Amino acid sequence: MRFGVVLRILGALIFFLGLTMLFPLLFSLYYRDGDHQAILVSAAITSGIGASLFLLYLRRVEEISHREGFAIVALGWVSAALFGSLPYLLSGVLPSFVEAYFESMSGFTTTGATVLVAMEGVPRGILFWRSLTHWLGGMGIIVLSIAILPLLGVGGMQLFRAEVPGPVADKLKPRIAETAKILWQVYMLISGAETLLLMFGGMNLFEALCHTFGTMATGGFSTKNVSIGSYNKVYFDGVITIFMILAGTNFALHYQALTGNLRTFYRNSEFRFYGITLVGAMLLVTLVLRFQTYETLGTAFRYASFQVGSIMTTTGYTTADFEKWPSFVQYVLVLLMFIGGSAGSTGGGMKCMRILLLLKQGYRELFRLIHPHGVIPIRLGGKIVSEEVMQSVWGFFFLFILVFVLASVFMAFLGLDIISAFVSVAATINNIGPGLGVVGPMDNYRSIPFLGKWILTFCMLIGRLELYTVIILVVPEFWKR
Amino acid sequence: MRFGVVLRILGALIFFLGLTMLFPLLFSLYYRDGDHQAILVSAAITSGIGASLFLLYLRRVEEISHREGFAIVALGWVSAALFGSLPYLLSGVLPSFVEAYFESMSGFTTTGATVLVAMEGVPRGILFWRSLTHWLGGMGIIVLSIAILPLLGVGGMQLFRAEVPGPVADKLKPRIAETAKILWQVYMLISGAETLLLMFGGMNLFEALCHTFGTMATGGFSTKNVSIGSYNKVYFDGVITIFMILAGTNFALHYQALTGNLRTFYRNSEFRFYGITLVGAMLLVTLVLRFQTYETLGTAFRYASFQVGSIMTTTGYTTADFEKWPSFVQYVLVLLMFIGGSAGSTGGGMKCMRILLLLKQGYRELFRLIHPHGVIPIRLGGKIVSEEVMQSVWGFFFLFILVFVLASVFMAFLGLDIISAFVSVAATINNIGPGLGVVGPMDNYRSIPFLGKWILTFCMLIGRLELYTVIILVVPEFWKR
Repeated sequence: MRFGVVLRILGALIFFLGLTMLFPLLFSLYYRDGDHQAILVSAAITSGIGASLFLLYLRRVEEISHREGFAIVALGWVSAALFGSLPYLLSGVLPSFVEAYFESMSGFTTTGATVLVAMEGVPRGILFWRSLTHWLGGMGIIVLSIAILPLLGVGGMQLFRAEVPGPVADKLKPRIAETAKILWQVYMLISGAETLLLMFGGMNLFEALCHTFGTMATGGFSTKNVSIGSYNKVYFDGVITIFMILAGTNFALHYQALTGNLRTFYRNSEFRFYGITLVGAMLLVTLVLRFQTYETLGTAFRYASFQVGSIMTTTGYTTADFEKWPSFVQYVLVLLMFIGGSAGSTGGGMKCMRILLLLKQGYRELFRLIHPHGVIPIRLGGKIVSEEVMQSVWGFFFLFILVFVLASVFMAFLGLDIISAFVSVAATINNIGPGLGVVGPMDNYRSIPFLGKWILTFCMLIGRLELYTVIILVVPEFWKR
Repeated sequence: MRFGVVLRILGALIFFLGLTMLFPLLFSLYYRDGDHQAILVSAAITSGIGASLFLLYLRRVEEISHREGFAIVALGWVSAALFGSLPYLLSGVLPSFVEAYFESMSGFTTTGATVLVAMEGVPRGILFWRSLTHWLGGMGIIVLSIAILPLLGVGGMQLFRAEVPGPVADKLKPRIAETAKILWQVYMLISGAETLLLMFGGMNLFEALCHTFGTMATGGFSTKNVSIGSYNKVYFDGVITIFMILAGTNFALHYQALTGNLRTFYRNSEFRFYGITLVGAMLLVTLVLRFQTYETLGTAFRYASFQVGSIMTTTGYTTADFEKWPSFVQYVLVLLMFIGGSAGSTGGGMKCMRILLLLKQGYRELFRLIHPHGVIPIRLGGKIVSEEVMQSVWGFFFLFILVFVLASVFMAFLGLDIISAFVSVAATINNIGPGLGVVGPMDNYRSIPFLGKWILTFCMLIGRLELYTVIILVVPEFWKR
């Protein structure tokens, strides 16, 4: 591990992050909410420290090892959240460091869990920064840097795989910088479309951008206290539902569709699984809500489809207080949290592809009991999945459950009731945001004890980077020469 | 699949089950509680139908296939619970079929979940039968039959593996009938010791036997309304804690210890994992209870060690209303349910050995990220575990979680609150008995809706036979020629 190399690339990332703070500065100056100084100073500190780190180690980096890749990505995210918390701290919106860091990590990891109350009183520059962190983290700050910064072109693959793990890699182009560029272009294009549609429905540019960031990154931060529900417009509910679903889809499929191959969706087995689960859950919840909560099928479908879409894609927007819904529906929503979006999407959770591979593996084990000597490969879209990929998938599944269990036991130890302990971890490790109990859709994370906020912050990071990239850093073997 | 062969062996099993009903008959006659007729008729019906099935197919069975093995064991358990429910039905103690079947399945699978209320009013012959089903099911009705019935000697291995799945087989002797005999002898010996110790403490023979059956089978049925807590004697708490822990240990280790090799416990990696988890959880819960619930360390340790031992070994006896304990402790108890006892013990749950193997596999995946080209075998007690065993273990883990999730969603659909839906399935699929919420330690399963009772009955069976033996029957491939 060459620490100089790690620091140099980290420096570039941090410098670049400081520049992105100039966007909220524009809104801050326009609305004159008094937060422009805090944002300007944050941008200066961030870029300044980033530039210094970069210049500390002047040698040109030719290639990075996979260990260095893991370290850069994990530390890159930890630092992004650190510098990203400056605007909250310096503006006095969140004077406590743990809360500012929590909010910042929640933004970048597209979790959308918030410790802010009374959103309408928060300066708009800060709110814009908060939503922008979603958008930057959604497609990936490292992926964005690979696309933009030429210096990362060489070792980009290591970094890309550490930030976008997934069970199987989608390389759209032979050069990783090209792939990163395409992903970001598609992301920007769809984001642009949503912004226009939201403005067409009556939102101003500020609100439309913030909610687009929240949707496309499957984040969930809103500029309103009661989220999308505060608009109470079928149009917004519909547009956001559709774009949440798009955001939870593998962006490689969007790219292929945009280049003319529309059948790519139907042909992709993960997308079929994602679509069937989503539609099935929407219909089931609609039926239950129709009989137990809402008077008409239309209303039931409106709220059910929005909430199911929001939870399964791990966005976390709400249009209704789903804690008042039947406990069966709440239970289904909690389960959908763990499935999550597709691999290669901005969604969190364990990802549809992993669940699909685990189902296939489970069925194979039954098959093997009947045919003990048969060799039965697992196929995905016609191709055989290697045993190594399968082992990595089920290692992921077990470790994910293990980390989940340990974290939620710790939350219970801190005094949370069983449901809150379980769901607060489920809603952060899967990058959703709102949960049940003390972190329900009408509550926020402010009441979580100090240590609990740190644990949940860690859960968000581990969920966003899909486990391995983070926990590998605590394995002693990683640090051996 | 030769159905004649399956029916013939099933017939032998059922006939033999009928004979075991003569033991409760003795207590029934002695106590004159008016239930002797019901028991006698049940015994006659059971033995009669069993003998008829056996005689229907007269050809001598030379060998059975592994498919026939699965079918015999799964159907054997379904039939045992069916005929075992006759005494409840005919005596009028449980006039509803679903409740009688639930209680019977709960007995054989050593779950200990009950729909009976006011235990003190139930005739003692019936109570004895109820506890005896625990004892028969604990070490295994099929294993017992293999040990006793010579006709099963030939195909015994298939049956043995289907009833005692575990990840790795412990063959104590080359002939499976010998292994089965040894296991039952050790089981009887330790049971005898506990009975004597309980009588020494003041229980009469009836109570001592019933509670020995409940302990040694890790069952949990008591003859008292408030379980072991009704005695409120440190002596009983201590004796039962120790014997629960023995019952949750692999009986092959007890055999080796009894034949002079006492170091076998220390050398066995699963036993070390089981012991460390048990002691660690006991100490942790003791500490929390000392500060939040009880006044002295001694009292806290007494209740903590009993309850942790009872839940982790999946027995389900209670000496305190643990729903009044801090929610952290409740959460820990629910997690211990899933770990369960050792492979080759009478305990339920996923089994310590599987958890241990999964932990090793999880660590290997991290290791592999650091050394992508290294070949790292997984070892257990110095021996390499084959990839096939590992695949079967993680297929088990995923399918277990899947069945658990589907069943608990269904329970929520039936109207149970989230905790009750979650824990009622956890407490039955892991064969514990008492849980939280509507099935808490001071409640029982009577309030569960009709369909829910059937689902939980299925969960008990699937948990006891460790999944594969039951669900393989619903795979279409199983029935193909």
